[in-house]
Amino acid sequence: MNYEEKIIEYPPVHPGTDRTFIRFYEGEPNPKAMLLGGCDEMPQRVFVTDTTVSSLPCMDEFTAEFGTGKGAAANSVHKRRSGKDILVILGAGEPFKTIESVLSIVAAALDANGQRSTVFVGIGGGVITDMTAFAASIFKRGARCELVPTTLLSMVDAAVGGKTGCDFGSYKNMIGSFFPAQKIHICPEFIKTLPQSEYRSGLAEVVKTALLFSAPLFDKLESNPGILDGRGKSEFAPLISEMIRTCVSEKASVVEQDLTEKGMRMLLNLGHTFGHALETCAGLGKVAHGDGVAWGMARAADLSERLGLCTKEYAERVKRMLRSYTWETSEIHPAMEGKGSAGDIARTIFGAMKKDKKNSSSKVRFVLQRGVCDTVITEADEGDVLAVLGAER
Amino acid sequence: MNYEEKIIEYPPVHPGTDRTFIRFYEGEPNPKAMLLGGCDEMPQRVFVTDTTVSSLPCMDEFTAEFGTGKGAAANSVHKRRSGKDILVILGAGEPFKTIESVLSIVAAALDANGQRSTVFVGIGGGVITDMTAFAASIFKRGARCELVPTTLLSMVDAAVGGKTGCDFGSYKNMIGSFFPAQKIHICPEFIKTLPQSEYRSGLAEVVKTALLFSAPLFDKLESNPGILDGRGKSEFAPLISEMIRTCVSEKASVVEQDLTEKGMRMLLNLGHTFGHALETCAGLGKVAHGDGVAWGMARAADLSERLGLCTKEYAERVKRMLRSYTWETSEIHPAMEGKGSAGDIARTIFGAMKKDKKNSSSKVRFVLQRGVCDTVITEADEGDVLAVLGAER
Ligand SMILES: NC(=O)c1ccc[n+]([C@@H]2O[C@H](COP(=O)([O-])OP(=O)(O)OC[C@H]3O[C@@H](n4cnc5c(N)ncnc54)[C@H](O)[C@@H]3O)[C@@H](O)[C@H]2O)c1
Ligand SMILES: NC(=O)c1ccc[n+]([C@@H]2O[C@H](COP(=O)([O-])OP(=O)(O)OC[C@H]3O[C@@H](n4cnc5c(N)ncnc54)[C@H](O)[C@@H]3O)[C@@H](O)[C@H]2O)c1
Repeated sequence: MNYEEKIIEYPPVHPGTDRTFIRFYEGEPNPKAMLLGGCDEMPQRVFVTDTTVSSLPCMDEFTAEFGTGKGAAANSVHKRRSGKDILVILGAGEPFKTIESVLSIVAAALDANGQRSTVFVGIGGGVITDMTAFAASIFKRGARCELVPTTLLSMVDAAVGGKTGCDFGSYKNMIGSFFPAQKIHICPEFIKTLPQSEYRSGLAEVVKTALLFSAPLFDKLESNPGILDGRGKSEFAPLISEMIRTCVSEKASVVEQDLTEKGMRMLLNLGHTFGHALETCAGLGKVAHGDGVAWGMARAADLSERLGLCTKEYAERVKRMLRSYTWETSEIHPAMEGKGSAGDIARTIFGAMKKDKKNSSSKVRFVLQRGVCDTVITEADEGDVLAVLGAER
Repeated sequence: MNYEEKIIEYPPVHPGTDRTFIRFYEGEPNPKAMLLGGCDEMPQRVFVTDTTVSSLPCMDEFTAEFGTGKGAAANSVHKRRSGKDILVILGAGEPFKTIESVLSIVAAALDANGQRSTVFVGIGGGVITDMTAFAASIFKRGARCELVPTTLLSMVDAAVGGKTGCDFGSYKNMIGSFFPAQKIHICPEFIKTLPQSEYRSGLAEVVKTALLFSAPLFDKLESNPGILDGRGKSEFAPLISEMIRTCVSEKASVVEQDLTEKGMRMLLNLGHTFGHALETCAGLGKVAHGDGVAWGMARAADLSERLGLCTKEYAERVKRMLRSYTWETSEIHPAMEGKGSAGDIARTIFGAMKKDKKNSSSKVRFVLQRGVCDTVITEADEGDVLAVLGAER
């Protein structure tokens, strides 16, 4: 069919905000002081958290403002006394990272007469911060958003950088948007109450940041494996706090250059291609995300060495550091034992990678390293990948 | 609590695309030729339409490619022979403009292994184009989008300009995003099969564009009321085609300046404040959207005159033109008859406006005019609004 053509050209826009203010707090978290100060002229806020976080002692004074007692039920919506702000409490953890949860935030905001000027405030781990920001981004085509990350992972990674979303069916993070928060409130001491496994999961992302962007952070991690079991000790508090700041700064400078993941933001996938495939093949919930990423960084180091990108020394150094934090670095992860021969397991994991990336060819792209802060994105042949997955053992 | 602050600054981005190619076709619509040409290297497409549109004769060859017969059931998903492209058929009309419909598009795309490079192609009226673009915008945080508007309203308004979304509960367009399509394919002849009421509804938006931006278009509408009942006549085809182009151009230049409705895009609400309130008060489905907007433009003209913004002559000219297209221009719309005294009805409609805009004060903002192409946004006092709603009769 014949046609004539006309073009509309758009100036670029800032989805959500043109800048994020990140506040680093000291001492015990005090959400009431942090979030409920201010005058009556404040815009309306829709606070979102989960059942676990809302039951933390430091949240008592905050939730009391909404008239909710300890252990308030999930999905209950409580109006604040002023009648303007509301609190939405969702179920805790990844199984609740659903579109239904996101829509329950939207519905609560609508019920409370929310506007584009309404601020959606997510208080929790990556599940809550991702979903709250997603809800804000689609509410009347975009409201405002602030985040209070309460897990190590969400402080150093999830809350920073504007990726929002939720899972869909059995697929992780399949729907979402790019919509940075206007403010992020970081209280490192929130992590004191984290389960150890969640804390360790967050540390894996700290290691990733070190490998990608900060030799001094790498050195600190190497020389302080005691932080794995010592986050309660006052000697480690300043160190952990400093590590969080370094991670936030480094992630910030990546997203300042590439918010929508068209280029260098892909570097942040170091360890993730192997890690996701392991998580999938081991069976849902068998390998924690951070543990998968840590193992993936070991595999990426071996693959880098095999492809002649880095020295044996560098690969060994990375793996030694990971092991000192009790992460698995061997070619075949224990979670895969009993799932066939070494070759079978390697091929299963390679298959999952191909599916994950939907590569039609037999090549998969990896984030690999020549050394600390020297990273490349490259394809690798099946043979090389299978080799570092132990197929030849 | 004390804190230190760090700032992340984002360069602006282009959600979806930096430009939209609008193609104007001549002659009978041929969706197969228009959309299914091209080579095997084409990216995957997820076509979305509704049961009514998929049953149009001009769609036969297109749907046949997906192995669907006439009257395929809503929500049925048919894989194309090539196994790559798919067709999703949703229920027709506003009642299907739901998040469930949007998610069924997402689910079908996931099932078909969709990627960010997948193109979501909406073929239909504003309901289908809004939802398809919304689905594209949240799929993996943003896939690609093309639109084929098949109603007059969607050609001149809905498909152009990047607003996407769906209804939520009883609230219209409460969730969505700003996400322009990469291509819009406009075949004016699609409108030949439209029900007359849908055609007239689209014409109201043409009138709006004329008042806001184009004196020549206003003149053409004034001197050709025959197009209301003559769209089938060959003498009117070039005129209607030209009107569509004018509307597209004018809307394009507004959204080029203000995609995300922070400023001048609000002008496009001429007639809508009154119109929406009437639609709401008359009861869902009683007054068609376009008819509400047309009546709203008459009310806006009277209010402009009352506030001394325009002359009596201008207000009369606008209303005369609207009446020549059989639209209602009287202070009290017939759909409100039997709903109380003149004063009651006026106050009911004013109440709906305040609620719609969630104005806390007794003032509501209106898009008003000094004359053709001379528009202002201003607040008006309750008394003046009630007066032009016939409260004093
Ligand atoms: N947006 C991004 O860029 C990005 C980056 C990485 C990860 N993520 C997402 O983040 C999620 C994982 O984040 P997460 O590990 O924080 O998950 P999470 O939110 O599920 O938190 C883990 C658990 O810790 C609990 N918890 C949170 N804070 C606590 C505290 N202070 N004390 C005690 N318990 C607490 C939570 O209730 C939950 O049960 C995933 O869904 C992932 O997709 C997003
Ligand atoms: N995004 C925007 O900027 C914007 C602007 C204005 C309106 N809208 C939205 O657009 C929607 C209204 O659009 P609409 O009036 O096109 O509604 P619609 O999509 O419901 O179409 C109206 C009816 O006409 C049928 N139809 C479509 N094309 C046809 C054809 N060629 N022949 C015969 N029948 C046909 C449809 O199946 C439907 O039943 C509303 O939901 C509104 O919110 C959006």
